[in-house]
This record gives sequence, structure tokens and C-alpha cells, in this order.
Amino acid sequence: MPAEEHHRNATPATPHPPTDTAEEAIWLWTQIKAEARRDAEAEPALASYLYSTILSHSSLERSLSFHLGNKLCSSTLLSTLLYDLFLNTFSTDPELRAAASADLLAARYRDPACVSFSHCLLNYKGFLACQAHRVSHKLWSQSRRPLALALQSRISDVFAVDIHPAAKIGKGILFDHATGVVVGETAVIGNNVSILHHVTLGGTGKIGGDRHPKIGDGVLIGAGATILGNVNIGEGAKIGAGSVVLIDVPPRTTAVGNPARLVGGKEQPTKHEECPGESMDHTSFISGWSDYII
Amino acid sequence: MPAEEHHRNATPATPHPPTDTAEEAIWLWTQIKAEARRDAEAEPALASYLYSTILSHSSLERSLSFHLGNKLCSSTLLSTLLYDLFLNTFSTDPELRAAASADLLAARYRDPACVSFSHCLLNYKGFLACQAHRVSHKLWSQSRRPLALALQSRISDVFAVDIHPAAKIGKGILFDHATGVVVGETAVIGNNVSILHHVTLGGTGKIGGDRHPKIGDGVLIGAGATILGNVNIGEGAKIGAGSVVLIDVPPRTTAVGNPARLVGGKEQPTKHEECPGESMDHTSFISGWSDYII
Amino acid sequence: MPAEEHHRNATPATPHPPTDTAEEAIWLWTQIKAEARRDAEAEPALASYLYSTILSHSSLERSLSFHLGNKLCSSTLLSTLLYDLFLNTFSTDPELRAAASADLLAARYRDPACVSFSHCLLNYKGFLACQAHRVSHKLWSQSRRPLALALQSRISDVFAVDIHPAAKIGKGILFDHATGVVVGETAVIGNNVSILHHVTLGGTGKIGGDRHPKIGDGVLIGAGATILGNVNIGEGAKIGAGSVVLIDVPPRTTAVGNPARLVGGKEQPTKHEECPGESMDHTSFISGWSDYII
Amino acid sequence: MPAEEHHRNATPATPHPPTDTAEEAIWLWTQIKAEARRDAEAEPALASYLYSTILSHSSLERSLSFHLGNKLCSSTLLSTLLYDLFLNTFSTDPELRAAASADLLAARYRDPACVSFSHCLLNYKGFLACQAHRVSHKLWSQSRRPLALALQSRISDVFAVDIHPAAKIGKGILFDHATGVVVGETAVIGNNVSILHHVTLGGTGKIGGDRHPKIGDGVLIGAGATILGNVNIGEGAKIGAGSVVLIDVPPRTTAVGNPARLVGGKEQPTKHEECPGESMDHTSFISGWSDYII
Amino acid sequence: MPAEEHHRNATPATPHPPTDTAEEAIWLWTQIKAEARRDAEAEPALASYLYSTILSHSSLERSLSFHLGNKLCSSTLLSTLLYDLFLNTFSTDPELRAAASADLLAARYRDPACVSFSHCLLNYKGFLACQAHRVSHKLWSQSRRPLALALQSRISDVFAVDIHPAAKIGKGILFDHATGVVVGETAVIGNNVSILHHVTLGGTGKIGGDRHPKIGDGVLIGAGATILGNVNIGEGAKIGAGSVVLIDVPPRTTAVGNPARLVGGKEQPTKHEECPGESMDHTSFISGWSDYII
Amino acid sequence: MPAEEHHRNATPATPHPPTDTAEEAIWLWTQIKAEARRDAEAEPALASYLYSTILSHSSLERSLSFHLGNKLCSSTLLSTLLYDLFLNTFSTDPELRAAASADLLAARYRDPACVSFSHCLLNYKGFLACQAHRVSHKLWSQSRRPLALALQSRISDVFAVDIHPAAKIGKGILFDHATGVVVGETAVIGNNVSILHHVTLGGTGKIGGDRHPKIGDGVLIGAGATILGNVNIGEGAKIGAGSVVLIDVPPRTTAVGNPARLVGGKEQPTKHEECPGESMDHTSFISGWSDYII
Repeated sequence: MPAEEHHRNATPATPHPPTDTAEEAIWLWTQIKAEARRDAEAEPALASYLYSTILSHSSLERSLSFHLGNKLCSSTLLSTLLYDLFLNTFSTDPELRAAASADLLAARYRDPACVSFSHCLLNYKGFLACQAHRVSHKLWSQSRRPLALALQSRISDVFAVDIHPAAKIGKGILFDHATGVVVGETAVIGNNVSILHHVTLGGTGKIGGDRHPKIGDGVLIGAGATILGNVNIGEGAKIGAGSVVLIDVPPRTTAVGNPARLVGGKEQPTKHEECPGESMDHTSFISGWSDYII
Repeated sequence: MPAEEHHRNATPATPHPPTDTAEEAIWLWTQIKAEARRDAEAEPALASYLYSTILSHSSLERSLSFHLGNKLCSSTLLSTLLYDLFLNTFSTDPELRAAASADLLAARYRDPACVSFSHCLLNYKGFLACQAHRVSHKLWSQSRRPLALALQSRISDVFAVDIHPAAKIGKGILFDHATGVVVGETAVIGNNVSILHHVTLGGTGKIGGDRHPKIGDGVLIGAGATILGNVNIGEGAKIGAGSVVLIDVPPRTTAVGNPARLVGGKEQPTKHEECPGESMDHTSFISGWSDYII
Repeated sequence: MPAEEHHRNATPATPHPPTDTAEEAIWLWTQIKAEARRDAEAEPALASYLYSTILSHSSLERSLSFHLGNKLCSSTLLSTLLYDLFLNTFSTDPELRAAASADLLAARYRDPACVSFSHCLLNYKGFLACQAHRVSHKLWSQSRRPLALALQSRISDVFAVDIHPAAKIGKGILFDHATGVVVGETAVIGNNVSILHHVTLGGTGKIGGDRHPKIGDGVLIGAGATILGNVNIGEGAKIGAGSVVLIDVPPRTTAVGNPARLVGGKEQPTKHEECPGESMDHTSFISGWSDYII
Repeated sequence: MPAEEHHRNATPATPHPPTDTAEEAIWLWTQIKAEARRDAEAEPALASYLYSTILSHSSLERSLSFHLGNKLCSSTLLSTLLYDLFLNTFSTDPELRAAASADLLAARYRDPACVSFSHCLLNYKGFLACQAHRVSHKLWSQSRRPLALALQSRISDVFAVDIHPAAKIGKGILFDHATGVVVGETAVIGNNVSILHHVTLGGTGKIGGDRHPKIGDGVLIGAGATILGNVNIGEGAKIGAGSVVLIDVPPRTTAVGNPARLVGGKEQPTKHEECPGESMDHTSFISGWSDYII
Repeated sequence: MPAEEHHRNATPATPHPPTDTAEEAIWLWTQIKAEARRDAEAEPALASYLYSTILSHSSLERSLSFHLGNKLCSSTLLSTLLYDLFLNTFSTDPELRAAASADLLAARYRDPACVSFSHCLLNYKGFLACQAHRVSHKLWSQSRRPLALALQSRISDVFAVDIHPAAKIGKGILFDHATGVVVGETAVIGNNVSILHHVTLGGTGKIGGDRHPKIGDGVLIGAGATILGNVNIGEGAKIGAGSVVLIDVPPRTTAVGNPARLVGGKEQPTKHEECPGESMDHTSFISGWSDYII
Repeated sequence: MPAEEHHRNATPATPHPPTDTAEEAIWLWTQIKAEARRDAEAEPALASYLYSTILSHSSLERSLSFHLGNKLCSSTLLSTLLYDLFLNTFSTDPELRAAASADLLAARYRDPACVSFSHCLLNYKGFLACQAHRVSHKLWSQSRRPLALALQSRISDVFAVDIHPAAKIGKGILFDHATGVVVGETAVIGNNVSILHHVTLGGTGKIGGDRHPKIGDGVLIGAGATILGNVNIGEGAKIGAGSVVLIDVPPRTTAVGNPARLVGGKEQPTKHEECPGESMDHTSFISGWSDYII
């Protein structure tokens, strides 16, 4: 997502990152520390939390590794082990760091309830689950599968977000609220996608192989939507809340209902222009949804 | 909810509180302690738990603060800090205490699986999430927003209930099962409302402002229902399980399905008399649901 | 489920247990230890976890009791107490042990993402929640209700799976992903049933009594399906993802949609042959679903 | 120690056990539970602690195993593992159970600050360290040395009592206050011995072999005494506080000072009659200590 | 201890409290917060610790209660319970608060290694053990003996300082290093006393009653000294390190050695002027110790 | 200490490191892993502990950092923070790593109860306290004093070893048993020193400045010895157990008793040849101790 696009959609008060990636990371970490410092001063009861999670760290990857290690640890998977694993992975893979930055920006600019980058970093289980998934995905791709699966299990226990380590997820992703999200083994999610809570990208049957959905760039999937099987959700498509989708959805169209129908009809579905994964417009399709009869 | 109404609906075996509010609180705490004492005697393995959570405390607010502090704490947000925060808030705000009492009564009298007040106090994540939300809402209204948001995050991690601190919630609320409930920033929930698990009161788009549902008194929202946008669910209305609602629902009518339709039709919807948020009748509308064709 | 049936459906690479029950248990534990040993050697970072949870134990029930005790404990319900409770229950009830074995086999043979028995034992919250439920059910049937309810609450907090202790559940059950599953007090689930995440087997109203669904053997219930009231889902039936079901579903038929309809029509629904709870076929009914119009 | 002897020395208020060993164990556990029940009723703030540690258990060995498991656990040695280890060992070895009973009686009858058996069981680090040592000693004798040494280390960290697993310790032992006690590998301690805090039974040099003290029955060793090398402290001997002893001490004599001298002189030391390990008389030798000149 | 005396002995850089008690408490807490703020700014890695223990609290008693609660808690005695107990006790007893202030001043002005008040408050186990003892002493005097004894046990486990709850301790006490200190049931310690580590104020025999030392005001007891029996250590007396004392020591004299002798001889012991409990002079008596012969 | 010297004193069964320092470190870590692997195979109950502390790590400094982080953490000083601090310090300072190796060799070759390097690494609180002190000393020398003092406090709480961060300690140090050791701010300890438990290197008075003992190379200090003031203990000197030393002790002489005397007399003390810090001979001086009269 080009930085300019952020700017266009952002509210006036929202600060804007530089367009260069390396500078963006520095700018972002500076913003996060400034936010945390401001909050720590205003709220002494939270200062300890803010210092331990953000202000005592020298970089975003250290802060994130610390926070994830403490969130995902258990009595049999110690925080020190997880911290080490996260820090080593984030430190050696600039792609993961860039993805984390893009996800922070996505939450900040798309979710009006996201008041600051630090708020997302500390409190958004969707953001945290997604970063932890990126690490488990890397472990999976390195054939460290038992460890990747153990991490998936911890993410599912702690955040109620169950993403198979093999699933491929792009950048600039917003998992909003995130509780109950399930993403299967062969699912692929493009860039700048927004996925609400209770969304399932599920498989079918007990046969292995490529059996999960492929989500194009800029897609928006509403709360509780269930997409099953190796189907394509075209780029910029919109899936209404609570929809059940088992067949391909063309790009920049909207599918709603259970069973899902295309707004505008199967033959000539209405095409929308903007990128719903970024505009987060869940309901503008109502007028076009003929049998929404209340 | 007037105490008389409890009485009418309650099963014969259920004890009844006095009608005076102050006496009700004392009566309720006495009941809770008696229940816990009986259970501790019958089940030594649970006695330690019952003493630490209930029997060692001198009031409901102390018990609740202790229990919430221990449930919601993490390695970076210590139980002592949270206990202090909860106790200070409950001790200084009689409204919050009255709401907690009303919620306990709601669970006890509406949910046939709720065998005792202490069972609800200790074990109902919906009850606990709601009380913790009331504290985070108070912090929000005092402009202690970072702390309110940190609390929201802990509630979402621990109970899988995600309620924005700014959301306004009445008294006598039953969040039954509660897993997966999401309530957005500008949502308003009236009194004596019953909300099942996986219910979403969501927003639309990335623009801030008043963008979430308003739920009238006595509404019943079935499991998995999704209500999106700044719509009004009129008092005493009933939303069927799994429904997706994006438009206003008139008072004392029933909306079902995805997309949701009014039972009896849009023009002359069937009006029911009783208060479904209290009767918890999820399915009586079936006969009037014309295309329920199994 | 006869062991032969496992074999027929299993992928070629999957090892097969002996047909004798007692031998099966030994064979299964041997497999689990071999898997864990292999993983511990390949992944030193996970070896500590694998030794503490599996390799240091002398039997499946000890391993399971240890793992559940550590997962479900809290600051007020100590791991040693829970470990003791689980171990005593599993050690004295061969039925519970047999059910755990059958559930492990079910996950391994039905879920293509389940790469090993140890993966299921350690990481599947549906499996773990189900075993813990079996213990709480036993406590319930022994009139140790407060302890049973406390356990239910811990399972709901930790795994986001809320099963009332009184609910009766058969063997060979797969709760896949499991987040958000709710099963009510008078629900009954047969053998060889597969239930996806977000499934509700709920009650109706505030009146007690027999008010939850009865699920026949071999049923498959898709993600997000909601079944309410004392209805019968006939053996081998299939409930589509996201369906809302309030009326009986005949054996070996498929119900889909919200409101749910029978594939093939109410009068002459299409009957399928195989056992969907085992085949896990979620989507083959699409061609027969006339108004699936995308 | 014959039970009669207890009786003679006990204060009038102290209850007396039956003389039969099996009955004594039952009597003792009954006493402990009665004490704990009385204290739980009088002090609600402590009731949870008393239920979890004593009142929820069916036997002394279960209570002790639970308490030790929780006291000695660490983030890398889990309480469930230690509980299991202690319970298995105490359950299968009646000698260890008898020794624990004898030690409880010893503390109760010799230490005027010991107000109840449950006080000793819960709060005396000397008692707890000694019981844990008995388990580590058993592991050592079964050639499970790394585990025995890990246990020794935990005892030393938690109680500041460092007893080598190979050291042999009799019954009816009182380690009073206990902080700083060090007992070396080849030390032997007889029955009915009382040892105060900071006492060292140490070795000499870097050569292995039999190099630590042998302490006879009924010996009393005062606070801070240091006994080094393979020396014999004869039965009923008394070692004054702060003494440094490197040579044998004859039976029923008293050694005091640094360097230690025999009271009454080396040639004809004063012989006392009673058993100081039981009478706990630390100071009656003063009049006989010629150069105590203050 | 008059504040002027502090001043005289203090190093020039040390800040001085006001002479009024109420003002002193405010001044002290202001100092502590300023120190902690300075340290938090200089050392981000410690800031979280400093905020949680000091900077998030509104008073010294809250900070101390939080710190003690977290230090002394265990898996069976929760931090919230202890925090509550400490806070209630300190909040309602100004004597305990005044004693804590006096002890902080004592450490700061007598121990050259004590660089700040906050250093003592956070890190001095002698200080923390003494404050916790004051609470257990209060509980004892209120006949809440089982709770007092449980607290004594936790203090002994965590700090290796074992003070019987019945022991009476004055103000302005410095327990320096503190490991291994043992103070018996009927011991009495005056004001402005300094006691080094490994010091025992012990009893004799197994008979109850008044059997422990009485320590006068301003006494200094060196490391490892053992004082046994109901003896009087006169005000301003000095007990040399490693001494064993079983007989009264006159005021402003020095006892050294094992067995202890009076410096200057039994008949005409040398009298010193200053108050050794405050001057902390351990060794000036050497010249007067005739047989110190190295 | 030259490696050859180890060899000479070592028992035949003890493996010998290479003489090159870099090779020695590799050899040592290889030995430790082999020991741990052997123990893990022999004792499944300990395997999890051995994998988490040793076998999952790639170097001694990682293992040590993990172990210290988990041992020294508290609810307000998290293990991840400490792990990070230890790992950063050990990774960047080869001197600290070399000292840790030398200390492991010292324990293994001097203490007959030390059966393996891994035993010392995991279980010797003296070894662990010393390594943690080296880190706190480094922090002190970098003017990170509050953090250094917080670390000192944790070491004192957990291991009952209280070493001021400013104290300078050489290599090849054995703190045997270690409970109760106190080392003051301006103390200096040379190389190849062995110090038993309860040893104090203390200061005098309340005046700052250079006021603690200086311990030469190869010194042996027996259990409970107290050395006070800025005195020199000459290289190779021996201090008897329980001695109280306030004046210089010449090299290769032995001081014993309270007050301490030189063996052989003040004028012509007996000189011994070997290095007692390595031979650990505590008692050979007895024959020369004229008034040891038992």
C-alpha cells in the first residue's frame, strides 16, 4: 500500500510516516515510544507496563518479542525460550519487521477505534496473533514443524486465533477484534486485506492438498463470514458479515448472505471502485441488496 | 428491572431478594456466602478456591475485585495493581455495585443452567467481563484511556469478550456463554438485555463518529447474531440466532435470518408482548417464520 | 467406530492401530512417545516441552493429566490439585481412557492438518477441552457439581470451549479448531461426530428441562452452525457451515443455510451414503443447493 | 523415641499420641486436620491456604507432597512433577512416613514455640527441608543421582538448608529455625537429634571418601556450631552454640567454645544424664564453663 | 532517635528530614519518589520495576504493601491477599508507618552502602523483613496467631530472617544484610539498635516462658553473634562479631569472643560514650582486646 | 590458575580440559552437554529440566543466562528482562565467560561432592550467585548502579548470598554451599580462592571509604569465618572455620579461633606450602593448634 493512500484516508490528526521503508520503521518506533511516554506520564498505574513492554526496549522487534514471549508463554513453554525465538527470528528477517510495521499502519489508518500505534502493538490480539503467526510460518518453511505447531496452539489458546503455520499472509493486514478467526493450512491472504472476527478460511473434507481459500489483495471480509474450499476471492472483493461462501467471488464485487449471493446479481454484479480492505466499508452494499427486507 | 418481575419469572425454588436496593445487596452477599459455604463443606477439593475467592472477603466488591484481579492479571499487569484498581472503583461507585447485583440476579433468574449466585460470580465469563468493562468504562469517562484500553485487551484475551471501553451498558445484563462477543465504541445497550455468545454489535467503515448499534431495554439477541452500524433495535425486540441486521428493528418485533427479515413481514410485523431479554425465548418465532423449511 | 473404518479412510502414510482395544491403547502410547522422541531430537528448543508433557510420563493418562492440569490451572485453582483430580479420574475409569484414545484416532484420521497423535494430544484445544469435559461430566454424575462447574469455567476461559458438565458426549469425537463451541446442559452427542468451531448446541428460553439438541452418530456439523432446542439431528446427517437449525434433521440428509433447508427439498431430501462425521466433506452438497448463486 | 518419653516432657496442654505406630499416624493426621479446621474457622483470610495445603487432602503424605511440590517448584521444575515424585515416594515407603510423623512429634514436644502439629507441617522450613531430603536420599540410594542433586539444590535455594542427598538422617529430628544448616555427603545423624540453625556438619579437603561427622542419638547441637571432619559426637552429647569442633566428643558430655573444650575438662568431662536432643537445654552448662567471664 | 543526631553523623551529601514527624513522612516519600524517578530516567531497564514498586503508588504504605505482597506471596498465599493484609494494617496503624520511616532513616544514615532511601525500601531484605514482622506482630497481638505464624514462615523462606511474631522490636532498627537472623518469641529489641546478619537472639531449653534476650536501646550486635537466654544487653552495649553471650552485658560496654568477655575486664569494663547502634563501630575495641593476638 | 595445576590435584576419573583458553571453553561446553544428555537419558523426570536449562542452548553463556534469568526473576523483574541483560553482558565480555569457566573448573576439581560440571552449573548457588555478581559488578562499573543494586538484592533473596556490586572478585572462585556469604563494597578477592558458607567479608563503622578485607590469591576461608575491616589476608593463607579476624594475616599462614590466633604463634607462625584455596584442607592445622583441647 503506497504511503500516499494512507494519507488520503487518514483523519487529519493522524501522523504520517515517511515514504521510505527504512525511515518509516524508525519513524514508527519513534512514534510508538513518544505515545508510550506520554501515556506513562499521564497514567502512573500503567507506567510500569509501558516501560516493560515498550520504553525499556531499543527497537520495535525487541518490544514485540518481549510482549509476545510474555503473552504466549505457559508453564511448559517458558517466556525466555519464546522471547529468544521471536527475537532471533525478527532480528534476522527484515521482511517480518516490514510486515509488522505495515500491519501497525493498517490498524492505525483503517480502524477508527485504534487511537495510537502503541495501542495496537500492546492490545490488538489480531495484530499480535498475526506477528506470532509470521514467526511460526517461518519455522514451518524451515521444516521446524513441531515448534511451529506448538506456537500455533499457543496463539489459539491465548488469542483465540487459529492460523495454520503453513498459511501465507501478506502485509498490511488488519485482523480486527480477531477472536475466533480460523485460517487453514493452504490458505493464502494477499496484501492490505482486512478480516473481522469469527472469520473462517476453512477446508473441506479429510483429504489433504490445496483445499483452502485464496484471498486477493485489498479484500474486506466481514465478521463471522465463512469461506470454505479452494476458492478465489478476487482482489478488492467484499464479503458481507455472516456470509457463507463456497464458490469464487470476482474482483471488486460484493458477496453477501448465507448462501452468499453477489450484489447486483450473478451475471452482472455491481463493481465497486475503492479498496474495501482499506476503506472498511461493511454496509454500503445494503441499498443494492434486494431482499434485505427489514 | 423491578424486583417483582424477577419473582414472577423465577422458578419456585429460587430465593427472592428484598425489594429495597440496599437490603438487596446485603441479601445477595449473604446468599453468595451461604452457597459458597455449603459447597466448600460438600467439596473439600474446591474449598480453598471458595475461601480465597468468596469466603475470606467481607463484601461482594472485595470478592469481585479479588477474582477479577487474579483472572485478568498478566506477567506485565500484576494482580495487585488490578485488584487495587477494581477495589477502588467498586468501593467508590455505588452504581457499579448495583449493576453487578442486577447482573447476578439476571443470570440467576434467566439462565436455567445458573444454579446459584456464586456459580455466576465465579464462573460466568460474561458476568466477569461485563463487570470489568464497567470499570474500564469508568476509566474511559475519566479520560484514563490508555488504562481503559489495556483493560479491554486483557478482557478480550482472557474471556474472549471484546467490549470497547466507551460502550455504554445498562443493568440487569446477561451475557450468556459470552465467548466471541464484540461490542463497538459507540454502541449502547439498555437495561435487562440478554446477549448470547458470538454476538457482534459492530461498526462500519473507517470513519469515526457514532457508528454502532443502539440496543433498547429488554432486547434478546441470539447466538451469533451480527448487528452492524448505527441502527436501533427497539425495546423488547428479538434478534434470531445467526441473523445479520443492518437496519432498524421496531420494538417488540422479531428479526431473523441472513439477511434478517421481520417475522410477520416488513409492513405488519408480529408484535410480541413479553420482554424477551428476560424470557430468553429464542425459538417461539419459528411458527411465524415462513420459509423455515426443514 | 470399528478400527477397520479408520483404515479405509486413512491416508497411506498413516500408521494403523491394532483392532483390540487394550492393545490399541498400548500401540497408541507407543506411537505418541516415538513421535515425541523424534521431534525432541529434531528440535532441541521443543525438547523440554516434549519431555515434560509426554516423554517423562509412563502412560497416556499421566501425560494427559499433567498437560490438562498445567493448561487449566489458575492462581486460585492450582495445577497440583487439577493434576490430582484428572489422574484419579482417568486412572479409575477405563471408559474415559478409551474415549481419549478414540478421540485421538478421530483427529488423526479425519483432519488432514493433524500430522501426528502427539500433535493432537499437545496442541488441539478441541481434544483437550473434550477430555477435560469428560472429567467434569463424571464429577457432575457423582453430584460433585460445584467442582464440575468450576472446571467448565476453566475450560471456557482457557480453550474458549463451553460445554456444560451434564452434556453427554460419545467417543471418536473431533472438535476441529474448537474456538467458540457451546454445548448446553441437556445436549447429547453420539459417536464419531465431527464438530467444527463456533458451533452452538443451544437451548431455548429460561425454562429448565430437556431443551438442547440430540446429535446422532456420525454427524458432521460445519463451522458456525447454530442448532437450538430439543431437536434431533439424525445419524449421519450433515449441517452446513453457518446454518441455523431449529427443527429435526432426518438421518443422512444435509441441512444448509439460515434458515436451514434440506438439500433436495423438505419432502424428498437427498440421502447420502457415507458417514460425514468421518469423511469431513463440508461442501459436496453445493451442487445440490439450488440457490447458491454466486 | 518411646512415646512415653514425649509424654513426660510435654506441657500439660499438649495432646498425646497413642503408642502404636499405625494408630499414631492416624491420630496425628486427625489432630492436624482438627487444628487446621479450627484455624480456618477463626481466620477466614487463612482458610484458603489451610484448605489447599491440609484440609482438602486425605492423608498426611498427600498434604506433605502437595505442600513440598508447591514450595520447591520453579519455572523449570514444575510443581506437578515434584508433587508426583513426592507422592509416589511417600506412598510406597512407610519408613519415610513414620519418620515424618516422628519429626512432627519432635518439633511439637521439644520446641516451645511450636504451637501445633499443623504449624510445624506448614511453616517449619527445617521440617520441610528434612522431609524433602528424605526423598532425595531415597533417590540417591536408587542411583537417581541427578534428580536427587536437583532436589538438594531446590531445598537449598528455598529453605537455605543444604543437605547432601547421601547424608543419612534418623528419625525424630528437629531442625529448629534451620536457616543455614549444611550437612555433608558422608555425614550420619542418629535418632532424636536436635540441630539449631547455622549448624555445619562439614568435610575437610578435596579428597572424597568418608569425611563428615557422625552424630549419635539424642545429641543437641547449638546454633552456629561447626563440626568438621569424620569425627564422632557421642550419643547424648551437647555442642554449645558457636562451637567449632574438629575432634570426637564423648557421649553425654558438653563441648563449648571456639576452639571447643569439654565442660569439666578433657580428662574428666562432666557427664549429664538427660538426653539434650530432647530437653533442648542449651545453657545449663554455663556454670561449669570456667572461663565464661562476663 | 532525635533527628539532630542523624544530622551530626550523616555524610554531607545526605539530605536531612524535617524534625516534625508528620512532615518527616511526607518529606521521606517525596525523597523516595524523586530518587526513583531519577533512577527510572537513567536506567530504562529498571523503570518498569520502579514504577510498579514506587512511582505508581500514592504513599509509602501503599508502595511497601505492594512490594511486600509480591515478595512474600506464594502459590498458596496469593499476593492480593497479602497486599490487602499489609495495606489494611499499615493504613490503620500510624505507629507502624512511623517505625518504617525510622527504619529507612536508620539504614540511610548508618550504612555507608545505603545510597538512597529507595534502595533500602526496595532492596534491603532486613528492612523488608522487619516491616513484615511488625505486621505479623500486630496480628499476633490481635490473637490472629495462625496468620501471624504463616507470615513468619514466608519471611523466613523469602528473606532467611526468622523473627517470632511475638518478639517486640523498637524503631530505628537496622538489620544489615540480615540473612540468617533469628529472633525468638520472648525477645525484646529497643530503639536504634543495629543488628548484623547471622545474629541469633535465642532461647534455651524446651520450657516455654520468658526465655529470650532483651536488647537495650542503641545496642550494636556484630555479625554472627549468638545471644541465648533471658539476658539483658544493656543500652549502648556492643557485642562483637561471632561472640556467644549467655550472661547479662552492662550498658555501654563491649562483649567479644566465644565465650564472650567484657573488654576491660569483668570487674571494670571499659565504658564507651557514643551509641554504637548508630555509629556502627564494629572494631574500635580491638586495641582493648588483650588476647587478640594475630 | 594454570590448567596443569587442575590436573595435578584432580582425581583420576575427572576429565581434563585443554590448556588453551578458547579450546577450554569449547571443551567445557561439550562436556556439560554430554553430561546433561547422559542424565536426561537416565532420568526422564529430569529430562525436561535438562533440555530447558542446557540441552536446548547453543553455548554456555546462553544456558547460564537462561538459568539465571529464571532463577532470579520475580513478579516485578521479569525473566525475559534478566535473560536479556545476562545474555548481552556475557556475550560482549569474554572476561566474564572465562571467569565462569574457571569457576566451573574450580568447583569440579576442588569439591569432592561436585560430580559433574553440569551439576555445578545447574545446582551450585555459590557458582550462580558469583556469575550474577560479575554481571552486577560490570553494571556498577558502567555507573548503572540502581540496576546493579537491584540484582544484588535478587541474588541475596534467592541464594542468600549478599555481594555488593562494587566488590572485586577474581577467577577460579569456589563459594561452597554459599548460604549466608556476605561480601562488602570495598572487598577484593583474588584468584583461586575458596570460601565456605556463612563467611563475612565485612566493613566497620558507618563511615564510607575503603573498609573491607582484601583476600589474596589461593586463600581458603572456612565456614562461618568473619573477617572485618580493611585487612589483608595474605596469599595462600588459611582462615579456620568460625574464626573472627580483624587484623592482617600473613601469606601462607593459618588463623584460627575467636579471637583468631596464628597457628605457630604471632611471632613465628607456621608457614604451609600448598595453596589451601585449591587443596581445601580445613583441618590439618589442628595438631598445631595448641589449645584445641577436646
